[in-house]
Amino acid sequence: MADYVRNLWYMAAWEEELDGQPWLARTLLDEPRLLYRAEDGDYVMMADRCPHRFVPLSRGKREGDTIACGYHGLTFGRDGRCVRNPFSDLIPPNARVPIWPVVARHGALWFWPGDAERADPALIPDFGFLDAGAPMVRGRTWMAANYEFITDNLMDLSHAEFLHVETFGTNGALFGGEHGVRQDDSGAIWSNWWMPDSAPPVWATMVPEGGTIDQWLEMRWHAPASMALFIGLALSGTDRRELIVPAMANPHIITPETATSSHYFFTREPGEASEAMAKRVFNEEDQPMIEAVQRAMRDRDFWREEPVILHVDAAAIRARRRLMKLRAEERPAGG
Amino acid sequence: MADYVRNLWYMAAWEEELDGQPWLARTLLDEPRLLYRAEDGDYVMMADRCPHRFVPLSRGKREGDTIACGYHGLTFGRDGRCVRNPFSDLIPPNARVPIWPVVARHGALWFWPGDAERADPALIPDFGFLDAGAPMVRGRTWMAANYEFITDNLMDLSHAEFLHVETFGTNGALFGGEHGVRQDDSGAIWSNWWMPDSAPPVWATMVPEGGTIDQWLEMRWHAPASMALFIGLALSGTDRRELIVPAMANPHIITPETATSSHYFFTREPGEASEAMAKRVFNEEDQPMIEAVQRAMRDRDFWREEPVILHVDAAAIRARRRLMKLRAEERPAGG
Amino acid sequence: MADYVRNLWYMAAWEEELDGQPWLARTLLDEPRLLYRAEDGDYVMMADRCPHRFVPLSRGKREGDTIACGYHGLTFGRDGRCVRNPFSDLIPPNARVPIWPVVARHGALWFWPGDAERADPALIPDFGFLDAGAPMVRGRTWMAANYEFITDNLMDLSHAEFLHVETFGTNGALFGGEHGVRQDDSGAIWSNWWMPDSAPPVWATMVPEGGTIDQWLEMRWHAPASMALFIGLALSGTDRRELIVPAMANPHIITPETATSSHYFFTREPGEASEAMAKRVFNEEDQPMIEAVQRAMRDRDFWREEPVILHVDAAAIRARRRLMKLRAEERPAGG
Repeated sequence: MADYVRNLWYMAAWEEELDGQPWLARTLLDEPRLLYRAEDGDYVMMADRCPHRFVPLSRGKREGDTIACGYHGLTFGRDGRCVRNPFSDLIPPNARVPIWPVVARHGALWFWPGDAERADPALIPDFGFLDAGAPMVRGRTWMAANYEFITDNLMDLSHAEFLHVETFGTNGALFGGEHGVRQDDSGAIWSNWWMPDSAPPVWATMVPEGGTIDQWLEMRWHAPASMALFIGLALSGTDRRELIVPAMANPHIITPETATSSHYFFTREPGEASEAMAKRVFNEEDQPMIEAVQRAMRDRDFWREEPVILHVDAAAIRARRRLMKLRAEERPAGG
Repeated sequence: MADYVRNLWYMAAWEEELDGQPWLARTLLDEPRLLYRAEDGDYVMMADRCPHRFVPLSRGKREGDTIACGYHGLTFGRDGRCVRNPFSDLIPPNARVPIWPVVARHGALWFWPGDAERADPALIPDFGFLDAGAPMVRGRTWMAANYEFITDNLMDLSHAEFLHVETFGTNGALFGGEHGVRQDDSGAIWSNWWMPDSAPPVWATMVPEGGTIDQWLEMRWHAPASMALFIGLALSGTDRRELIVPAMANPHIITPETATSSHYFFTREPGEASEAMAKRVFNEEDQPMIEAVQRAMRDRDFWREEPVILHVDAAAIRARRRLMKLRAEERPAGG
Repeated sequence: MADYVRNLWYMAAWEEELDGQPWLARTLLDEPRLLYRAEDGDYVMMADRCPHRFVPLSRGKREGDTIACGYHGLTFGRDGRCVRNPFSDLIPPNARVPIWPVVARHGALWFWPGDAERADPALIPDFGFLDAGAPMVRGRTWMAANYEFITDNLMDLSHAEFLHVETFGTNGALFGGEHGVRQDDSGAIWSNWWMPDSAPPVWATMVPEGGTIDQWLEMRWHAPASMALFIGLALSGTDRRELIVPAMANPHIITPETATSSHYFFTREPGEASEAMAKRVFNEEDQPMIEAVQRAMRDRDFWREEPVILHVDAAAIRARRRLMKLRAEERPAGG
């Protein structure tokens, strides 16, 4: 089992994934989990595993806010305690299912796999931009790769000049850009590209003849792998104020399914063209390469393989180091 | 390799599975084995593995009571000894294939994987009911689960109220029933349900208006996992004498293929409806749930997972304890 | 990872497999490798793995004699050194890809996975017969088996009387033949069958009525598994001089892909009938049996399984012992 940091908020699902469903069953951090919306509107996450014979509770039935196992009928309440044994009035005291704190925030559901007493909702990264602007489609994809390899991909956008050169039409602006890394007060690590005075895209008819634009790509990372990408294009020399298109903000939130597979939450514009574009970028361009990293690594340790470190890796490496520190802090003393 | 009890009779096949076949090749207790009927009518079981280059002998040819390997022609007799080396008159003394005792009894073939000298046919559990009554179809299915999880399922029939509620139309009789566990002189462990004064099934027109019936379900277990289910329905208060349908008896005999897969031998009534019913009960209702137990357990130890133990588990737990005792007895001292 | 002998020439590919291709990507001895023909005609083999994020370089682009990684653009020259980092003028000194010596000889490409200083082309086994005679089709197949099991198969041709009895129509000549093993000055081990005074094949109309022929099958082995088969048929008593068909020579060169899978290089006559024959012999007759050996062995050690050793195994066993000796020599002292 992977060495996950436990005392963090992880995104489990989009809130709307539960619409009209008795529950959502999903493996997160190696464990099958069941997520449902209680009748009072709160969300509940419990282990998707009956403590009697260990079958998934998602093979059972929802009855109000309880779940009855489909095998022998043990029924569990939202606090995880067994409330009914259909063959006896005696309920063994160890008949309980683990539960975890869940919080809905900006349309996403966040859970805390560690010590519930430390689960402070104020620690959920700010994805307030999800509520603003034109409505976006909330999507999820899946990759057969450890979440840190997906983080590496996102925190080093230089790969766009190779993997996405046709889809994004970046025209080499990243090659001439400046890359910087910074940390903010929320603890986020930023991987920022600044590309001043670059040629405008062909569709940018609002740019005066012969004029240039300033572009930026800013990827913000919160542990474990909750990222947000901010993109801007402005007329050159306007100090980012005269935007030629509305600023864009997109979540790239990665949650481990297992040590070698991940859920990937994103948003995209509505419409078929945007759907096709997302599929191309995520599943035809990024996914095969990221999964190739996973296959090449097999189960070997990243650092023991002595990877070449480039300047453009600075932000990804800083995120990796942050996770190493968090893991070390959670390790029992002497462990 | 799993820690099987060796000094026990295991069912290998139905006798009729060999009809018209030179042999039957089947993996049992992790080892590929070859079963054939010799010309004198006796049955032979040998390892399906040539001791020269280890290929299955079932890739070879049967010649009378001998089997010639299909790779280089080493030929073995029913005692497992090599009787011919086509390239030399010299036969290496270690050119032998392991053989095991096999006994045909009531249409089933039983083999003894342990010490052949202890293989007393009197120890084969009594399935004499297989020879009585109307002829039944002898079936075999397969489940991707350890045989003890299938035993758990059969020794606790309370699951019928959840998994088979529509197919069996049990109408909740098990909820009000009494469950008891007993041991008999043959060493069998019985898991018995007694459901007196219950409402008759709709088809039971022989029950007087307003009358009730006594029902029983009795599952008998012999190690390792050879079970028989006895079912009865009688007019209430007749001390089980006035049956409303003929008493039923069915084998449920499980033999490990590997530590995580099992052969399941059963009988059913002839006809398409009964075939469809067996498929539904075994393969659509029981199998997915039992295989879910196996997947949930991965390769973890049952007891270390600290399962909740219910009263209805009493018989299954007693069977598990019996196997633990038998395994401990076979373990070498100091092992 | 398997315990391969490193300081040996292994066949990587037929030279013509690279015709018209920027490169050939192939896993050899557990490692993905990239093979290409440089502009000056020399061949280059490098690890198919970028040292930055470990993706296959074969997902990138060839530019002259360099390979640019398809992920972030690091570009490597034929000596394995990084020659370009598109995002910086700084190239980390550890940005190098391992390379191995490659030599083209008689249409085959040989590489040396061990210490490059010891890679003396004079050590490549002589397959000069590949350049002589009528042109042959150069083929490659693949088997899910360790290369030593394929060697066992080839060094003991007695299996032809069982596996290939219909395709070769050997008519039992091997049963009466003499089998001998010898070593030559090149270090090769020979497994020779000599079948004097045998009945001629039906197509051999040049043999006088009632006449017989002398036949021989001679398999030459060089470590690790580079074999050549020499076949002859001559009028009896002519001291192998009056051949009834031209002498035949065929390569059977096996290179491990992994510990449990192998590349198998061979030649065959042109034409559909010969193609079908090769497919039948290699893939329908030999392959299933050899793969059955692999499955039967799982990951167990050959010698610990105490295989029966026959006289006809003498050459195969001698080849196995040679490899054991070579492995022992390469093992670090005290290891």
